[in-house]
Amino acid sequence: MIENKNQSKTDLGNLGEFGLIEQLTQNFTIEQPTTNKGIGDDGAVLDFAGDKVVVSTDLLVEGVHFDLSYSPLKHLGYKAVVVNISDICAMNAIPTQITVSIAVSNRFPLEALEELYEGINLACKYYKVDLIGGDTTSSQKGLIISVTAIGKAKEDELIYRDGAQDNDLLVVTGDIGAAYMGLQVLEREKQVFLVNPNSQPDLAIYDYIIERQLKPEARTDIKQLLADLGVKPTSMIDISDGLSSEVMHLCKHSKVGCNIYEDKLPLDPQFINTCEEFNIDATTMAINGGEDYELLFTMKMEDYDKIKGNPNLTVVGHMTEEKEGVHLITRANTKIPLKAQGWNALKNEEE
Amino acid sequence: MIENKNQSKTDLGNLGEFGLIEQLTQNFTIEQPTTNKGIGDDGAVLDFAGDKVVVSTDLLVEGVHFDLSYSPLKHLGYKAVVVNISDICAMNAIPTQITVSIAVSNRFPLEALEELYEGINLACKYYKVDLIGGDTTSSQKGLIISVTAIGKAKEDELIYRDGAQDNDLLVVTGDIGAAYMGLQVLEREKQVFLVNPNSQPDLAIYDYIIERQLKPEARTDIKQLLADLGVKPTSMIDISDGLSSEVMHLCKHSKVGCNIYEDKLPLDPQFINTCEEFNIDATTMAINGGEDYELLFTMKMEDYDKIKGNPNLTVVGHMTEEKEGVHLITRANTKIPLKAQGWNALKNEEE
Repeated sequence: MIENKNQSKTDLGNLGEFGLIEQLTQNFTIEQPTTNKGIGDDGAVLDFAGDKVVVSTDLLVEGVHFDLSYSPLKHLGYKAVVVNISDICAMNAIPTQITVSIAVSNRFPLEALEELYEGINLACKYYKVDLIGGDTTSSQKGLIISVTAIGKAKEDELIYRDGAQDNDLLVVTGDIGAAYMGLQVLEREKQVFLVNPNSQPDLAIYDYIIERQLKPEARTDIKQLLADLGVKPTSMIDISDGLSSEVMHLCKHSKVGCNIYEDKLPLDPQFINTCEEFNIDATTMAINGGEDYELLFTMKMEDYDKIKGNPNLTVVGHMTEEKEGVHLITRANTKIPLKAQGWNALKNEEE
Repeated sequence: MIENKNQSKTDLGNLGEFGLIEQLTQNFTIEQPTTNKGIGDDGAVLDFAGDKVVVSTDLLVEGVHFDLSYSPLKHLGYKAVVVNISDICAMNAIPTQITVSIAVSNRFPLEALEELYEGINLACKYYKVDLIGGDTTSSQKGLIISVTAIGKAKEDELIYRDGAQDNDLLVVTGDIGAAYMGLQVLEREKQVFLVNPNSQPDLAIYDYIIERQLKPEARTDIKQLLADLGVKPTSMIDISDGLSSEVMHLCKHSKVGCNIYEDKLPLDPQFINTCEEFNIDATTMAINGGEDYELLFTMKMEDYDKIKGNPNLTVVGHMTEEKEGVHLITRANTKIPLKAQGWNALKNEEE
């Protein structure tokens, strides 16, 4: 799909590593007061003036984390940034900088990388983070994107995974499962396309779930929202691998158990309709599907009134004693033990 | 070479991503007072108490930056850390933390990654840096290592690439060229091995240059040395791509020219002997060979007496006006314009 067959395209090998970095980052600007020096020296220089510094890193591999046959490079660049910013949000910190390193095989022309960096730049502008460094090199196969995100927070603002307590409420932001069903639609259309390259899919009825997959957003708004509501979560994590897997992490780190209620799960109607069309169980998809990049947090039960009715926040369960384990309480009031069936990048289940 | 044919080896797919990270990082300890929280949450938390934060990142790709047929995984892990720490040193900062992300194809058993992380841990201990995060995923082909290094410095300690001035002295730490000649020896032995797998190479006479290639060290000692000598460099960079290429960077950023004197280049006798054996010009190798990870800096001429005779520091030239360009002055007093012939990872010249 992204083969450098077009001779008018610019071959990367002729550009050189330094020329390439300059070319790709020329439209990036520095906006953060914490960035003293960005790209262009051996290292970037940051000044957090006593604030805590939060660091998170992710590696995205073609054929494992994304498929360029339906993931436009611009979206991919945007998503690579969002995925990492989401981790900073999950610490209740404010994202401030990123570094982006890429390894590309020579099937990618310069123009493809420019598209990728356009998406990265869009995300930088939208989330007000500065690109402060990176590395560009060749790969033996495919595209690999490594992003490190940096953020800041006051010490008493930080929220870890290990603070949840028995009786705390379990809260999800936004809705879940949609990104994974968006992926199912894209995978199906890819198979249709392989059989009949002239087919023109009408994806309008899937617009929301496809956008959730291709262009997710990080919940940078939640920190302020919770501060405004006067709620301080006791633990927090972002939902990258699926609700089930993330709840497990909170429970393991906090040494608590959890009951999640099936009828409380926040599901978008388009997600439900698509599950029905695919004849798969919406609840299973909602708790195991990943990549929504919503936040999952616990909070004191007595704060419930502060979040009641807020369209961004849904109570989906409550924490229990550790020995009670982690369960889904179904609509039929059956108690099903949860397993982390989240996405395992090492098993390549989705290839 | 690292095929998972041995059925007693542990298959990565059975371990899961979180199990793998725990397994690989269980022997790592946190030593830095600046590390508040390391691995185990969405992000690490650091506190620099008002110091400047320096960030640098590098991507190492199998078949591009290293060849596992002669690079032991433990050495590779060590080197991956060193390469990044070297960038922090080049800012005259103190390295404090690293994140390490790896993508591996399933031909690597767990034991191979444990060896890699043993080398990473060795470097962390030796350089007193904390591993604070990372990501582990599968790759379509080979091993990819992404390292982000973080360091700290007082504002007035930082040294950039753009401070060199006309008449400043150009100084190199240690000796140069050896790492590249070490690579030549290893490449030659690989070819011999491919023809005759029973050959037993005697590499003892190349021990220094091979060690420079396989297990380089970062000059974390130079910051203190220069402080003790009372010398503050006007510009600095580390020599990863070769002296010629790095001088170009200093000149470009500082808007100066430079004369380098062939007879001043600090060369190890083993390097010179090996160049003779290979019948290649030692000067060409010394100025174009990369991966020595020595530091290159400029300093005021009036400080010369402070460094005179120091075995770690060699004056190799001086800066000129920009219009004079960048030249090598040969032993025969010929002035040769320098080109950056440093290693270009995008051209895969060394594959």
